[in-house]
Amino acid sequence: MERLPGFRDFYPEPLPHNDVWSADARQYIFDQWREIARRYGFREYDGPPLEPLELLTTKSGEEIIGQLYNFKDKGDREVSLRPEMTPTLARMVAAHERNYKKPIKWFAIPQLFRYERQQKGRLREHFQLNADLMGELHPAADAELIALLIDTLRAFGLNAEDFVIRLSSRNAWQEFFKNGGGDTLHEYAFFQIIDKLERTPLDESEKKLSALGFTLAQVNTFIEAGKPTEELETILHNLAARGLKDFVKVDYQVIRGLAYYTGVVFEAFDRKGEFRAIAGGGRYNNLVKLISGGKVDMPALGFGMGDVVLLELLKARKLLPKFDAPMDVFVLIEDEALRPVSLKLVHDLRAAGYAVEYPITPAKPDKQFKRAQELKVAHTARLDNDAYVRIRDLKTREEIVTGLAGAANHLK
Amino acid sequence: MERLPGFRDFYPEPLPHNDVWSADARQYIFDQWREIARRYGFREYDGPPLEPLELLTTKSGEEIIGQLYNFKDKGDREVSLRPEMTPTLARMVAAHERNYKKPIKWFAIPQLFRYERQQKGRLREHFQLNADLMGELHPAADAELIALLIDTLRAFGLNAEDFVIRLSSRNAWQEFFKNGGGDTLHEYAFFQIIDKLERTPLDESEKKLSALGFTLAQVNTFIEAGKPTEELETILHNLAARGLKDFVKVDYQVIRGLAYYTGVVFEAFDRKGEFRAIAGGGRYNNLVKLISGGKVDMPALGFGMGDVVLLELLKARKLLPKFDAPMDVFVLIEDEALRPVSLKLVHDLRAAGYAVEYPITPAKPDKQFKRAQELKVAHTARLDNDAYVRIRDLKTREEIVTGLAGAANHLK
Repeated sequence: MERLPGFRDFYPEPLPHNDVWSADARQYIFDQWREIARRYGFREYDGPPLEPLELLTTKSGEEIIGQLYNFKDKGDREVSLRPEMTPTLARMVAAHERNYKKPIKWFAIPQLFRYERQQKGRLREHFQLNADLMGELHPAADAELIALLIDTLRAFGLNAEDFVIRLSSRNAWQEFFKNGGGDTLHEYAFFQIIDKLERTPLDESEKKLSALGFTLAQVNTFIEAGKPTEELETILHNLAARGLKDFVKVDYQVIRGLAYYTGVVFEAFDRKGEFRAIAGGGRYNNLVKLISGGKVDMPALGFGMGDVVLLELLKARKLLPKFDAPMDVFVLIEDEALRPVSLKLVHDLRAAGYAVEYPITPAKPDKQFKRAQELKVAHTARLDNDAYVRIRDLKTREEIVTGLAGAANHLK
Repeated sequence: MERLPGFRDFYPEPLPHNDVWSADARQYIFDQWREIARRYGFREYDGPPLEPLELLTTKSGEEIIGQLYNFKDKGDREVSLRPEMTPTLARMVAAHERNYKKPIKWFAIPQLFRYERQQKGRLREHFQLNADLMGELHPAADAELIALLIDTLRAFGLNAEDFVIRLSSRNAWQEFFKNGGGDTLHEYAFFQIIDKLERTPLDESEKKLSALGFTLAQVNTFIEAGKPTEELETILHNLAARGLKDFVKVDYQVIRGLAYYTGVVFEAFDRKGEFRAIAGGGRYNNLVKLISGGKVDMPALGFGMGDVVLLELLKARKLLPKFDAPMDVFVLIEDEALRPVSLKLVHDLRAAGYAVEYPITPAKPDKQFKRAQELKVAHTARLDNDAYVRIRDLKTREEIVTGLAGAANHLK
């Protein structure tokens, strides 16, 4: 029986097969995500992976349903696996924001689900670091969040030669659109043309732009100039003060597809351009108000970073550590009469915090030792009798004999 | 907009509301689960939360569908959110067991979903530690797994006065049933009567038993005698050798409801009997063969421990630590001219591994200091000028002045 297409099995390393993923690598990524969030004072939250369908369509419109794992539950409720975290976050914050000091700095590591068109290697679920900062309008908040994004990627060993944050602003494009005589009614249509500029034939973009009263030349001139707005200047200076200038550049080609962004937007890309975006985010100052039905009005911004592109990039740059989960000690049981005392030793060493393995059933000494080597243990331990333990350091080959009770102290 | 009934929001502590759960407590539980599994040499795995419906009915029969979150996906596949982990585990092991040395010791922390009848406080999802040991028939393997269960509960501060493992065996009951002249065809029906004995009126049990040729008195005598089988003796001796005798007792009332258990079964209960079972498990030697369509035949046993009862128990026994996520340092910015250098300091301290907060926008000094206290920081840091930092230990009230570059070294 096979798993569903687009879903992943996570095996312990070493991996048995190319089309499965490693639970160890996943945990490594989650650990880094959590650690950098902690340093930045972001607190973890989570919500249900299943939400009312209405929560998702309120944010993204009915057209999102085509991409959802949605269904009717046994209580006749229209529900869906979450395709993104932001609606859940907005719901949770709106419900209990008064309990938390502003600005609210939260992160989550949800698994997200989308019914994508089936393509080789195209996944229907992924994990995503979601970090959000709420309750602060000042662009210094944008800088704090972008610094978190940069330092999270740096925690994996990626540096300024590996990736860059392309920083942009819907406000800048809004200004451009208004100054060029654009009709506010068509503003979002205009944003969508800009969003697709890089992957659309030139004449097609030209045609669409001209319908709104613009030329491609105008647009390109604006992008090439890349003159930061005052808001972007503030962010750039803030990041420069932290020593992060080399990780960010203004790039107005980035505008993000989603309708709900309201100001600064950004995406993280590998410099070589081999992968899809590593992360993306921006301001969504109206969403909490929308989700809460007007009850809570709170500016916010956030980003999402998926585990799939990140892992591909780390593999390509040879930045993934080895995950052989070495054990600390192997307790050899060569004399079965000593098994009960050996079990006591196993238990004491584990209680002292060591990872300990032993032959669960009787086995030949050479087979036991081979297993100890496979497990890459630092030490073997073997009882001489029911009172004394022989501990061997497999690297230095030094051996000491100690009383049973004090064995843990000799492993340091 | 509300979340779905039976689902939980996980907020950062302090908790805003009684009907929400804490992401910090959840992470604490997961951390202990992972740590003890590591000491025992169990490796982490995971599978998809959505599986083909057939995988689940193969193991548990069609009648399970009534309790599932199942639906037809957009590719017309019958799918379901996982109600348990064992089918996924059996599928994964059967697919790639040759890559792993036996016995295979794996664990996972899946979120599981069941459409339960709606009752106050009754949840439709929970997280569960699943630990399984595969490829070893000997009861020494059962002892190793039960020791893991005991030490996992002990890691939370629970001791032999708090909980006990009720150890039983389907083999013992099988023996009893056969010796009493029971018909093998009705064996599972008999097991189900035993399973429900504690919560069924006596006359009803008596009637059902007599239909199979047994009396309640016979059954009660067998339970009260509680004479361990040879297999259970081996397990008890093994656990006693580890010093875990007080955590386990033979109790034939435990037999577990599920059809697929084949030998030893066990449940962990709080001694005061205030809560539902904390954990449960047993041998399922035929399941891997069943799931793999006969391809792989491998004995196995495992247990599951949910997060809900465990958390209730830890709360009742006052064993939950406080989760106030203290920050290490608050960087005070009293002179806005020093903000850029202060941002550099914030960044350097975070890069050195400290959790650092600061006023994102200009704020009055007393407000900043109040915020530092709320965050329970150990130190404040304030720039005297663009080269020297004043670091204050809020406990000892000692203050030192150091150069900007060396600030991190003075926090120890």
